Amino acid sequence: MSILPSNEAPAGAALTIAVDAMGSDGAPHPEITGALQAVRHYGARILLTGNAEILRRELAAAASPAERQAIEIVPADEVIGMDEPAVRAVRSKRNSSLHIACRLVREGRAAGLVSAGNTGAVMACAKMILGSLPGVHRPALAAVFPNIRNTASVMLDVGANVDCRPDHLEQFAIMGEIYYRAIFGMERPRVGLLSIGEEEGKGNELTREAYARLRQLPLHFIGNVEGRDLYNGEVEVIVCDGFVGNVALKISEGLVETVRTLLKESLSRTLSGKVGYVLSRRAYAHFKQRLDYSEYGGAPLLGVRGGVIISHGRSNANAIKNAIRVARESHNVNRAIEHELSRGRAAATVE
Amino acid sequence: MSILPSNEAPAGAALTIAVDAMGSDGAPHPEITGALQAVRHYGARILLTGNAEILRRELAAAASPAERQAIEIVPADEVIGMDEPAVRAVRSKRNSSLHIACRLVREGRAAGLVSAGNTGAVMACAKMILGSLPGVHRPALAAVFPNIRNTASVMLDVGANVDCRPDHLEQFAIMGEIYYRAIFGMERPRVGLLSIGEEEGKGNELTREAYARLRQLPLHFIGNVEGRDLYNGEVEVIVCDGFVGNVALKISEGLVETVRTLLKESLSRTLSGKVGYVLSRRAYAHFKQRLDYSEYGGAPLLGVRGGVIISHGRSNANAIKNAIRVARESHNVNRAIEHELSRGRAAATVE
Repeated sequence: MSILPSNEAPAGAALTIAVDAMGSDGAPHPEITGALQAVRHYGARILLTGNAEILRRELAAAASPAERQAIEIVPADEVIGMDEPAVRAVRSKRNSSLHIACRLVREGRAAGLVSAGNTGAVMACAKMILGSLPGVHRPALAAVFPNIRNTASVMLDVGANVDCRPDHLEQFAIMGEIYYRAIFGMERPRVGLLSIGEEEGKGNELTREAYARLRQLPLHFIGNVEGRDLYNGEVEVIVCDGFVGNVALKISEGLVETVRTLLKESLSRTLSGKVGYVLSRRAYAHFKQRLDYSEYGGAPLLGVRGGVIISHGRSNANAIKNAIRVARESHNVNRAIEHELSRGRAAATVE
Repeated sequence: MSILPSNEAPAGAALTIAVDAMGSDGAPHPEITGALQAVRHYGARILLTGNAEILRRELAAAASPAERQAIEIVPADEVIGMDEPAVRAVRSKRNSSLHIACRLVREGRAAGLVSAGNTGAVMACAKMILGSLPGVHRPALAAVFPNIRNTASVMLDVGANVDCRPDHLEQFAIMGEIYYRAIFGMERPRVGLLSIGEEEGKGNELTREAYARLRQLPLHFIGNVEGRDLYNGEVEVIVCDGFVGNVALKISEGLVETVRTLLKESLSRTLSGKVGYVLSRRAYAHFKQRLDYSEYGGAPLLGVRGGVIISHGRSNANAIKNAIRVARESHNVNRAIEHELSRGRAAATVE
């Protein structure tokens, strides 16, 4: 299996995706360029939401007339900032580029949406406007990241829900497994429960109860996994509550930065280190690329009506392009989630 | 402030420390060599617990007659293995090197102990045999690690307690702050609560309630910190429940390994990368040293009667030497913890 998900377009569809063009730190450039790349590579159709004047001008400069046909601008007057309190912003700015993108999905004009904006606001807005799929108790945010075996791992929830119940974790396992199968094409991904010891009895109250539920699901459940397993490639789907998952994700981001900084400092201390750095910079570029999350496009919000991908604020065009691809593929993911959860499997625990 | 704690011996004391000589992966060599170094550097007195015959032979080969005087062997017939279930092993192997070390502390023959053995067993044995300091609800395991500013950060609890209550976190804050002041000599270390957003309202039920308590303590409480703050040197004492802390610690360990492996792989892909690696290997050694936890000796178990330092199973002699130093310094830490907590400050919340 490759580190990258398949690049094929979803079967039989030129699915339309709404892209919040005002979300990322560099908006609207990464969004416009990423949308154009998705049009070229996947034959995607895009609805770009945001300031119409700016978008029209930028798009005219960047796109050919044929490409221009595949991208429609949908005006939105407001923008939700990165640091705005999410819930308040979602309630007050009803004409934001994010709201308009969500409404396009709700109205069926787009199959999904991509936003690199305020993560809390995207989650709140998507849950409010789109709602949950039938049978889903709590939508979950899934982080996709590379591991040492050059495959991807998916961890959920990473921040949509704090204070989870065991049945929430059970649904996260089901949704994460479906997502992994659909996006990475693996038949039986391994599912692990993030805990603090491998034995069944290890963990806190939540994980011990969740363990009992997960072992009864028709999944490839491998039991508890530990923090060190996130990156060793021995588990594909890692289940945890949103508080723990969010802490885990932010530690990882912070530590990768720290290691990079320390290493650079160490290398610049001596002349031979500097020479070594120059000679090995191609290796560094390769190393950096292996840790690059942009190939995955962003974090899917699983369990809502529509394919919602939340990209990093620092997303480049490549990340937006990939997020659009994954949003299109989420169509099948959601059908499967609805199928699995609406028949009450997770609620009843036993098949 | 330096990354290293002060190397001075504790005021007016040649405090005796018990060292479980059978704990580490390479036992008893790191323990014996580390004990000898502590004798030489700090004038420490050591009680080595373990197989008397082996220890006598090894010690005779390594120590001068004068050094030999400072180290007493206390025979212990049993050894608790790294993978044994902790609670059962602690109950059944009452003549283990770990039990004997704990008993030496309880009997007042040693002021503290160092073990690089099974962490769960050390915690269980120390809590059972030594008991908690007056006023302490739950002893906590504190991890000490380097950050990007070349100072140390302390995080607690990292595994002694899962399912904590807000008042437990409050005591962790007090104990961690006292420890940091005593060991790293900083007057007003910053104390942060590990959560998933900086604003007061962010987090789960536990952290929101703990926040309200921590802000009333006479500490330099800086509010919520996030996973990314663990390594940026903006906070000295990080408070969390033992489940979250243990996950955080193991993610960090796993990720540092992962980054090292990926980087090495990337560098060995090309000839120039290999040349670069050779030229920069001194920088690598320096980099590795900056991430080296052995300078801190190990993780203190705060709140028990006696200075208990749990070292990593992979400890080398340097880690054991440093653990012995910190165990000696813990004397003052415990006095301060008892003073603060036995007057019920944390229980009553308000001064």
